Amino acid sequence: MRPITQEKMDKLTNFMEKNSIDLIFITDWGNARDVNMRYLTGHIMDANLIVTSGGETILLPWDVDLAEDHAQVDTLVTDKDSRHNPATYVKEAAKNDSPVIGFNLGIPYRYILELQRKMPELKLFESPHKLADMFTKLRSTKSPQEMDKLLEAGKIGNKTIKDIRKFAEEKEGTENDLSFIVMKKMQEYGAEENSFPSLVANVVRSHMIHCHPSAGNNKYSENGLALIDYGARYDGYVSDITIPLSFGKLSEEQKKIKKTCFKAYEEAIAAIDVGVPLWKISKTAVDVIEAAGYNMPHGLGHGLGLTVHDAPGIRQKPTEPERIEVWREVLVEEGMVFTIEPGIYVKGLGGQRLENDVMIRNGKVEVYTKSEPIEL
Amino acid sequence: MRPITQEKMDKLTNFMEKNSIDLIFITDWGNARDVNMRYLTGHIMDANLIVTSGGETILLPWDVDLAEDHAQVDTLVTDKDSRHNPATYVKEAAKNDSPVIGFNLGIPYRYILELQRKMPELKLFESPHKLADMFTKLRSTKSPQEMDKLLEAGKIGNKTIKDIRKFAEEKEGTENDLSFIVMKKMQEYGAEENSFPSLVANVVRSHMIHCHPSAGNNKYSENGLALIDYGARYDGYVSDITIPLSFGKLSEEQKKIKKTCFKAYEEAIAAIDVGVPLWKISKTAVDVIEAAGYNMPHGLGHGLGLTVHDAPGIRQKPTEPERIEVWREVLVEEGMVFTIEPGIYVKGLGGQRLENDVMIRNGKVEVYTKSEPIEL
Repeated sequence: MRPITQEKMDKLTNFMEKNSIDLIFITDWGNARDVNMRYLTGHIMDANLIVTSGGETILLPWDVDLAEDHAQVDTLVTDKDSRHNPATYVKEAAKNDSPVIGFNLGIPYRYILELQRKMPELKLFESPHKLADMFTKLRSTKSPQEMDKLLEAGKIGNKTIKDIRKFAEEKEGTENDLSFIVMKKMQEYGAEENSFPSLVANVVRSHMIHCHPSAGNNKYSENGLALIDYGARYDGYVSDITIPLSFGKLSEEQKKIKKTCFKAYEEAIAAIDVGVPLWKISKTAVDVIEAAGYNMPHGLGHGLGLTVHDAPGIRQKPTEPERIEVWREVLVEEGMVFTIEPGIYVKGLGGQRLENDVMIRNGKVEVYTKSEPIEL
Repeated sequence: MRPITQEKMDKLTNFMEKNSIDLIFITDWGNARDVNMRYLTGHIMDANLIVTSGGETILLPWDVDLAEDHAQVDTLVTDKDSRHNPATYVKEAAKNDSPVIGFNLGIPYRYILELQRKMPELKLFESPHKLADMFTKLRSTKSPQEMDKLLEAGKIGNKTIKDIRKFAEEKEGTENDLSFIVMKKMQEYGAEENSFPSLVANVVRSHMIHCHPSAGNNKYSENGLALIDYGARYDGYVSDITIPLSFGKLSEEQKKIKKTCFKAYEEAIAAIDVGVPLWKISKTAVDVIEAAGYNMPHGLGHGLGLTVHDAPGIRQKPTEPERIEVWREVLVEEGMVFTIEPGIYVKGLGGQRLENDVMIRNGKVEVYTKSEPIEL
């Protein structure tokens, strides 16, 4: 089953017609994922996809068996070499000799070169940002079926919180140990897999935005600020939770980091309401953090869906004229599902991030994951 | 420390001068990785990189702290917003108003659009395939330091084989159980992390090239053909091993799949020698598989390095004129490190893949991982 609804599919093809786009070409492969492939077809991964303005979908998968099990498309190309010559299929699908082709902004340059070489008469859609915005807009709100799966992924994450607390309370074990427990428990609770490798960082590493490696053989409960960032995948859909932890007696500065982070979180959550611009929610948190003399080196949050960084992004309004040009204001609306995750990171002192998942359902703001600080 | 040697860095800048490329712009981010960023700088992930024809490197990282710990570059830009306006830094680094800029083929289209918008006078290097080939060529052979780390990653993988055998012999437990054991053991043996989520597939799932999900709650030892594909990362460098397993009494067809896969493996390994074209090694295996009436839906092997799919690729010679145009023959040479992994996949019967890692060192072909079939 494809996740996109017929109503949204119609929006996409209407957009294509209005903008005289004959075809959209989407690719999803190991080093350059585009979740729109799965969103438009249901096929899991590793494929090229052609969508015509008539709404026809033509899938060129690597693993034909996998596609047969999952894809809901008009044409499933079973030639195992089709991925090497997508242009042949693009030519076939095009209704004229110089089709206008739309690409998502993340598409690797090689595909554009390849299609241009084989179809010198092809025209690139001249407003690629408009098309990217369209994709973002489609995925920014979830259908009831998608919301159910997201809630389930959230529940699995919630159940795991007590296991994390139990581990932390024992004040023994390494980051890797905790990472294993979380993985094991989430699978026990029904997760298909981790939505990403859990980031487990003790005080020495928690100042890193995305610690590397994701977990290590360091004692997790060293005195100071620590965190764990983890999530479950359920039938494709993900949750994303960060629990900030603190161990032992903290310095005044560490206490301030903690307090500021939690205040930013509370105020951001309180700022969410239907019709509020997303940048304002971000600004609420950033103002708290900057007033305390810190900065936040990442966005306040991101959408959740078939990918951990889905639409919409909860970010600051850009300041550079060139970025404002392609920026558009997005308001909170029914069906949006996103994280709120303010963080403060100071090398030597550690970091704190508090992250929960939020859903706008039946006009209500629902914080459906249950992370809260663990202080030991 | 940056992994690239000075000698290779000189090769790159000589190439740039010869081809009048003023700057190369490389990006490495979550959904579109380019290992050349780490290879040229030592910085782990998430950054933009500018390389000038004079050999100057300018890094625009997301996590400045992480870069300070790992990057060996001429300029480390510490402005945390630099990732949003790379064009500013490209302009600064360019020596004239219309610099010729080179991109790797995998770069997301958005960066090209972004630079073109901010620098309308910019010229794209007109032979991007030549530059991509240059990167591939540089990474196709490893320095002695890189080889040492690859061998270490291989050793960790080798040590884990006895744990996998022990688990399999018990004929109990799920795919997930085995996946956990492998992860746990590899870390015990010194791995930084898994080089990728282990693919663990029993007879019901082993026909999938890359099974999804990577492991599940299925009994692993159901009678028939199974496999596990896993690897370790050690100081950035990876190993990649597939062990084919079989349980119980097999059908004649299953026996044939197994026998054919192993024969293809043996003949491919025997075909490796310094000076042999890579496509010939691939052809050796494919001929065995096709003679038995099967096909192989993936390449025979790939390079190993800072990424699991590094250069060189061990693939068939292309047949389409357009692909031959940009194809070049590559010969086995000193310092190459790659996998050999023939596989046969039949839905309903299962799959078999035998994969080991090969290094060309001191003129000798060394199969340094020790996977062999487990038959129970």
